[in-house]
Amino acid sequence: MVTIKEVAEEAGVSVATVSRVINQNGYVSEETLEKVKSVIDKLNYKPNSIARSLYHKTSNMIGLIIPDITNPFFPELARAVEDVAMMYGFKVVLCNSDQNPEKEMKYLDLFKEKYVDGIIFTTQSQESTVYSDLNVPIVALDRIGDTTIPSVVSNNYKGAKKATELLLQKGVKNIAHIRGPKNIAPSEARYHGFIDAVEGKGVNYTISEAEFQLKDAERKAEQFFETHTGIDGIFCSNDTIAAGFLKVALKKGIKVPEDLQIVGFDGSFFGEFIYPELTTVSQPIYDMGAVATRLLIKIIQGNQPEKLLYEMPTTIIERGTTR
Amino acid sequence: MVTIKEVAEEAGVSVATVSRVINQNGYVSEETLEKVKSVIDKLNYKPNSIARSLYHKTSNMIGLIIPDITNPFFPELARAVEDVAMMYGFKVVLCNSDQNPEKEMKYLDLFKEKYVDGIIFTTQSQESTVYSDLNVPIVALDRIGDTTIPSVVSNNYKGAKKATELLLQKGVKNIAHIRGPKNIAPSEARYHGFIDAVEGKGVNYTISEAEFQLKDAERKAEQFFETHTGIDGIFCSNDTIAAGFLKVALKKGIKVPEDLQIVGFDGSFFGEFIYPELTTVSQPIYDMGAVATRLLIKIIQGNQPEKLLYEMPTTIIERGTTR
Repeated sequence: MVTIKEVAEEAGVSVATVSRVINQNGYVSEETLEKVKSVIDKLNYKPNSIARSLYHKTSNMIGLIIPDITNPFFPELARAVEDVAMMYGFKVVLCNSDQNPEKEMKYLDLFKEKYVDGIIFTTQSQESTVYSDLNVPIVALDRIGDTTIPSVVSNNYKGAKKATELLLQKGVKNIAHIRGPKNIAPSEARYHGFIDAVEGKGVNYTISEAEFQLKDAERKAEQFFETHTGIDGIFCSNDTIAAGFLKVALKKGIKVPEDLQIVGFDGSFFGEFIYPELTTVSQPIYDMGAVATRLLIKIIQGNQPEKLLYEMPTTIIERGTTR
Repeated sequence: MVTIKEVAEEAGVSVATVSRVINQNGYVSEETLEKVKSVIDKLNYKPNSIARSLYHKTSNMIGLIIPDITNPFFPELARAVEDVAMMYGFKVVLCNSDQNPEKEMKYLDLFKEKYVDGIIFTTQSQESTVYSDLNVPIVALDRIGDTTIPSVVSNNYKGAKKATELLLQKGVKNIAHIRGPKNIAPSEARYHGFIDAVEGKGVNYTISEAEFQLKDAERKAEQFFETHTGIDGIFCSNDTIAAGFLKVALKKGIKVPEDLQIVGFDGSFFGEFIYPELTTVSQPIYDMGAVATRLLIKIIQGNQPEKLLYEMPTTIIERGTTR
């Protein structure tokens, strides 16, 4: 491996001068610049990037904090972040926080010490000052954070409203919404979308709640079908809840979509693995990850974000669980 | 932020001495050692980890090269790698190679330059010398690489044999195996497990092939059910293929498990999302990732691996697609 010292000797200049050339920092005469560059080429010298990052305090690394990569929403997001990062020469450090504030803090500390150039986070376990105090570019994804932090989200409210209206158009008379956890912003927005589509429309509706998790959704579905009769349409707050309700309905011999129509939210890949295939509100998951990463890199490169909230449109995918 | 210079001044020693204390490298008198340590505590000095990694040529980073995080097998694996790495103070850099040799090479080059401490890879696009020339600890996961590279795999052959025998025990008379791609080692091993369970047993069997991918599996299933009649049991090379065959069977009105029994392989989470739930050969995906990471860290810490092949047992999970 060629060292910076060998380059300096061969070029007849000091190590500091070679360093200035590599880092494009400080004065070097045109003549010296040419000389050093030609020696670098000749010896095929590759500047050590860790040394460079010590100098520049940059690492070409992006930290990605997500709750859990095994939650079906996040692999596609992580994939998008990595694809775009790679395109711009950045690498991605993956962190699963389990929405645990201590674990998240541990990562944030690690990131400060290691000079990641920026952070994308999809959890929001800390006071918003914790993020702004990091002194590192940061973008929030799928969670509206503090109004000072640029955020990329999909239009949860509109998507939910459209999904509910679709069910009503398809003849649903007794509609239910299975909402997600109250402390999660997208779940809250979807609830309001549902409410605004049914209120004052003379529609019978009912609200239940489930975690974004299959086993809990199945338990809630068992209870739901025991205590509710005549429900002919359900809008679920995400695809996992929808999968749980569909399974239990099929198990009970309820015909889907003939007697019961179901719509989920997310557009997770597994919606196509089940039969009947799940009708869902598709979030542009990959695009959201890509936009957030591009935005973060722009900020890292010293540009101001044009706006603080990037809201991406959702699309309804009609498949087998609606008529 | 306290600097090493301030620590040196406060302790009345040179920066080089403080550096020797931090890096536990070179002679420092007992007295000076105590003095410097107490100043470090007093000023709450945190040695810069990038500077440390330049010195030690370590970064506390592990590179994880997988084909694609959106392939349902890999999120759980990545999660395990990250959990164990975190436990030992390592961070994980995620890389999706798409099994593309050029993309993989680009990552390997990046890793060399950035001093990752070790690499876990699940793809195998290069000549094995490429990996051994890296001069960095390396562990192969789910792919048996060169015999000089430590590998963690599950027992694909045995799992496939057990799955086939299960179908025969459950009364299957005309059995099919949908094998995976020929160039993927686990798919090959599962094929041999199937063959050894049926050959010489007086059983009618047939072999078809599909990619590990839903759309292709559905296409192949359409063709399969048109050209084969009387098949009452199918062992699929993975869960994605099984999901495709199950969907098409249900669409055609074939009763599962009454008239057709299906077994997959992997134990992917989505096996529980579909109805009937998928019977499958479960690989200990999380454990495989954890063992590989622990093994890699041991090697990074200077220990020799006890053996080169870690083969983990599979388990059959009987669910709704078998009787």
